[in-house]
Amino acid sequence: MSKTLERTALIPALQNIATRLRIDSVKSTSAAGSGHPTSCCSAADVMAALFFAEMRFDPKDPHDVDSDRFVLSKGHAAPILYAAWAEAGAFDRSELLKLREIGSDLEGHPTPRLPFVDVATGSLGQGICAAVGSALNARRIQSPYRTYVLLGDGESAEGSVWEAANVAAMDRLDSLCCVTDVNALGQSRPTMWQHDMDQFARRWTAFGWHAIVIDGHDMTQILDALAEARSTSGKPTMILARTIKGKGVSWVEGKDGWHGRAFKKGEELDRALAELESQFVPVPGDTEINLARQIPKPAAVARPAPAPKPPAPPSYKNDDLVATREAYGTAIAKLGEVDPRIVALDADVKNSTFSDRFEKALPDRFYENFIAEQAMIGAAMGLAARGAIPFPSTFACFLSRAADFVRMAAISNVGIKMAGSHAGVSIGEDGPSQMALEDLGMCRAQPNFTVLYPCDAVSTERLIALMAYHPGPAYMRTSRPKTPIIYSSDETFEIGGLKVLRQSAGDVATVIGAGVTVFEALKAYDLLQGEGIAIRVIDLYSVQPVDAEGLVAAGRATGGRLITVEDHYAAGGIGDAVAAAVAEAGLTVHRLAIREIPRSGKPDELLDRFGISARHVVEAVRMVGLGVRQGS
Amino acid sequence: MSKTLERTALIPALQNIATRLRIDSVKSTSAAGSGHPTSCCSAADVMAALFFAEMRFDPKDPHDVDSDRFVLSKGHAAPILYAAWAEAGAFDRSELLKLREIGSDLEGHPTPRLPFVDVATGSLGQGICAAVGSALNARRIQSPYRTYVLLGDGESAEGSVWEAANVAAMDRLDSLCCVTDVNALGQSRPTMWQHDMDQFARRWTAFGWHAIVIDGHDMTQILDALAEARSTSGKPTMILARTIKGKGVSWVEGKDGWHGRAFKKGEELDRALAELESQFVPVPGDTEINLARQIPKPAAVARPAPAPKPPAPPSYKNDDLVATREAYGTAIAKLGEVDPRIVALDADVKNSTFSDRFEKALPDRFYENFIAEQAMIGAAMGLAARGAIPFPSTFACFLSRAADFVRMAAISNVGIKMAGSHAGVSIGEDGPSQMALEDLGMCRAQPNFTVLYPCDAVSTERLIALMAYHPGPAYMRTSRPKTPIIYSSDETFEIGGLKVLRQSAGDVATVIGAGVTVFEALKAYDLLQGEGIAIRVIDLYSVQPVDAEGLVAAGRATGGRLITVEDHYAAGGIGDAVAAAVAEAGLTVHRLAIREIPRSGKPDELLDRFGISARHVVEAVRMVGLGVRQGS
Repeated sequence: MSKTLERTALIPALQNIATRLRIDSVKSTSAAGSGHPTSCCSAADVMAALFFAEMRFDPKDPHDVDSDRFVLSKGHAAPILYAAWAEAGAFDRSELLKLREIGSDLEGHPTPRLPFVDVATGSLGQGICAAVGSALNARRIQSPYRTYVLLGDGESAEGSVWEAANVAAMDRLDSLCCVTDVNALGQSRPTMWQHDMDQFARRWTAFGWHAIVIDGHDMTQILDALAEARSTSGKPTMILARTIKGKGVSWVEGKDGWHGRAFKKGEELDRALAELESQFVPVPGDTEINLARQIPKPAAVARPAPAPKPPAPPSYKNDDLVATREAYGTAIAKLGEVDPRIVALDADVKNSTFSDRFEKALPDRFYENFIAEQAMIGAAMGLAARGAIPFPSTFACFLSRAADFVRMAAISNVGIKMAGSHAGVSIGEDGPSQMALEDLGMCRAQPNFTVLYPCDAVSTERLIALMAYHPGPAYMRTSRPKTPIIYSSDETFEIGGLKVLRQSAGDVATVIGAGVTVFEALKAYDLLQGEGIAIRVIDLYSVQPVDAEGLVAAGRATGGRLITVEDHYAAGGIGDAVAAAVAEAGLTVHRLAIREIPRSGKPDELLDRFGISARHVVEAVRMVGLGVRQGS
Repeated sequence: MSKTLERTALIPALQNIATRLRIDSVKSTSAAGSGHPTSCCSAADVMAALFFAEMRFDPKDPHDVDSDRFVLSKGHAAPILYAAWAEAGAFDRSELLKLREIGSDLEGHPTPRLPFVDVATGSLGQGICAAVGSALNARRIQSPYRTYVLLGDGESAEGSVWEAANVAAMDRLDSLCCVTDVNALGQSRPTMWQHDMDQFARRWTAFGWHAIVIDGHDMTQILDALAEARSTSGKPTMILARTIKGKGVSWVEGKDGWHGRAFKKGEELDRALAELESQFVPVPGDTEINLARQIPKPAAVARPAPAPKPPAPPSYKNDDLVATREAYGTAIAKLGEVDPRIVALDADVKNSTFSDRFEKALPDRFYENFIAEQAMIGAAMGLAARGAIPFPSTFACFLSRAADFVRMAAISNVGIKMAGSHAGVSIGEDGPSQMALEDLGMCRAQPNFTVLYPCDAVSTERLIALMAYHPGPAYMRTSRPKTPIIYSSDETFEIGGLKVLRQSAGDVATVIGAGVTVFEALKAYDLLQGEGIAIRVIDLYSVQPVDAEGLVAAGRATGGRLITVEDHYAAGGIGDAVAAAVAEAGLTVHRLAIREIPRSGKPDELLDRFGISARHVVEAVRMVGLGVRQGS
């Protein structure tokens, strides 16, 4: 184990690794013709110390459950991350020269296509949030693994960094050790605080962290700080490393205008490499020293494999009135009882989303983030990447606060299971700021997101169980109003399915709803029945993937007349999903949706005022289905 | 002016106003049957002092340019905001009892439907960001007006609060005075720091603010703190007011479980009101004291009305190759030169978005936010609400960081003019974290957003001028690659328009592109021409509103065969926009779009690999247009 080496040998050995990491970063970005070599050079000494004198991991098995984690929050320094793993022996160094090529997984910014990347980074301020989740996971599985993060100084302007700072301090995450690479230069100009280290230190201290200011190019100080972090209990540590951007290549050191710029092949590159090569130092004693071979393996922790049993079936009675948000709380608590991987995260609305039922049942696996949605989704990403099945939930509208995290979760393809309550105008009096009307669109946009929208408690509970074990990210939309139970407890559902709730041979149109509008469609069915008009009614509980075949079949059976009705803005929701699914069959869709900014009012008043009540469905059926208008 | 009153009279008079504000908040929420009376009661003393002893404004003309501004960042305390304006004489107190009714503009959370509300609040952590914009605007127009903000303590967990804190301190916004109502109780539980005032003070001090801790129910302390803030120069002030949630109604004071709960009409309400009524105190001396009549009017500042001239026409040459992002920078700088209302905001990517051209030309109206997209969009909202025409820009993908601000900007209907560069896979090697593929969907979702997507420098410049003066929020998507100039400098464009670039009587299909895919469509046109096949090519530069008539006409003229091709995910973008526009005419759309998470590679490789290159357009035309498949 490298830590047993005398520092007189260890330090020059690490310095030489740092030099090699710089050389590899410079070479690979020049080969690619783009990238951020100067952002790598500032971090090289810290990276060398972390990977070759601090972390416990197996370069050949980066996924090991008890392995220390490293998150490159400043994702644009990807080349040095790749160089470090190559140095550690994870893959051949020659691969580095394929950086940013379409055939290589060594992308411009790290993604989990690489086995040693837990979450994609490259949108600043997210890695540290995911790392909080990684540290929470260590606590969940009682593993001694530690989580390390490298941030940029410019990154500290992102609010999500401070959300994570609060949560990590509150949760006393002493297994979390962050390093900020304070190289004083942002992309377009010097950073806000440049090399004023006190600006950083006073913030992190104020936020309850153990803050250590060091010279980020002094290996002794780096090692001492890492040791100090390891021995700090009850709080996370932030090492503030004063560095020089471009360190090692004298003519770009600390120079503005060199962000995101590779050295030009030829004279410029050769000159940089020659200078770097000259920086190798002799290592006293053992000249055969190979720190990569001495990386300590992860602790071997014996623990039983999770053996989840299926939860008991739903136990609602037919005449119950239960909001789907409430059914959500019940469902995750039931699932949590039988599977230790299930965890829940909140942003101080647990009594509205009903995630407090999970907290009550399983307080140790319930993580309160207070009103910090980015930190919540980020932590869920980290938890998911480490084997948990996280259900973060808040009002659906406030998930948009974490839209960029949703985007990165999709790129990461991590199994976060988001739930958003209080969707649509049906929330009523609280007004538009509390109404999610674009959440389906936000999640449907991501090609690998599953999007579910149940209308009753039984389907909610069934879909939660499906969603938990379906690979990849998922979103469930729940509603505020209490709604009737329309499914029996033994009804089965599937991701990508739909339910035909009413049908007859003489249906003049198909009306497709989801959530609260299923009941508007059913009311419209009854109203039209009274006039002798039959319609088909579909509950489109799976919005993505969508059952194109089922929709086309219904459309064809009802004269090609499809009507969608949704408590969501017109763009991006159910109307668009259905229209895209049936277009190839030559069918079009008549859409009822919210088409203007809504306002406060009673739920029923709003459904009617904004065009999605049973009355509007009836009118649409008359217009579309009874030939008042042709062709759609 | 009330400040000239002796404090012996002023203080009890203010205390009585605070009591009336509590009574009105309790009454109006009980009348509505919902709302947050306890969140109002904690803030009543601060509100009374702000409105009736501190701020300069005209209750009958809240929009006055030089009027002090008040932003209720904790929007759920709306009832006390309404009560304060009623007390000031802006409208009749009886209106308060219509709170949350569909026919009243006194919504559950404040919106600019009310003349005294600059930006909608109700999504926590946004009001303070908008207030930064308001304070920047005072500097822009050289007005002495001050901006006041009331935040909740739970709200302090939002990262956007700390983004605003950094920006306001950096910009030395001493006209900004915030108050945090530290009532220690969140929605679902006690807040993170409860009444540990030092937790707040040390954070705000660390972030460079002048922090003052007071008892938020002690009128003398409140008045002293406001005076101290007014005399503090070079930094913004945060007054941390320790308060009791539900103050004034003894049996709910400081009790958990009373968030967002109105007193029940009848005994419960009567008991609360009786206790509050008993809290009126005698005012020594003048018993006729009416502080509302003594509110000081805004300063009368003489300034010329802005008289913008039209900018010079674009001056590109036909053989130029110019990225639309670069044309954006040139366009806003040109516009800024002729109109003092134009301002630009950046998040440390000005050398990539080319907003640095604006900074170079007009440094005083260029606001750097560093890497803090929420603060940037929030400040733009505040600037727009106060008469500026703000152009905030960053990489399009990072605008998703501010998606919730985009949502609230739409609810506010403020004229922010966002621009997002580096859209789509055409950015190439940086990889998916830097590629916006859902930005069109994010902005199209909002019914009042204008969404523009030019393909060349001329249309970019023309559309920027249109966008600046078009009412309401707008978004322009720009691209990284250099593209040819296809329009002459005198070409005219319109919001809601499109351009037919190629057409003939024998066109077998219409191909609709925008941005970089216009050139793929044109390449496909040339390839197909070589085979004797004619297609129509449309540049859909206005994605919202969209020219439905023009699209239907093109579709009908080309056998109903419409093909969209876009550098965006399949959901929410151009395909959906066109499909929705032509559905009523019975037309369907064949869509080429990005259908999986992309990766790093060369731009052309990626366009081809992910299905939106000229080759794919040609294939789609063969399939759709030449009858390989029927019906779409």
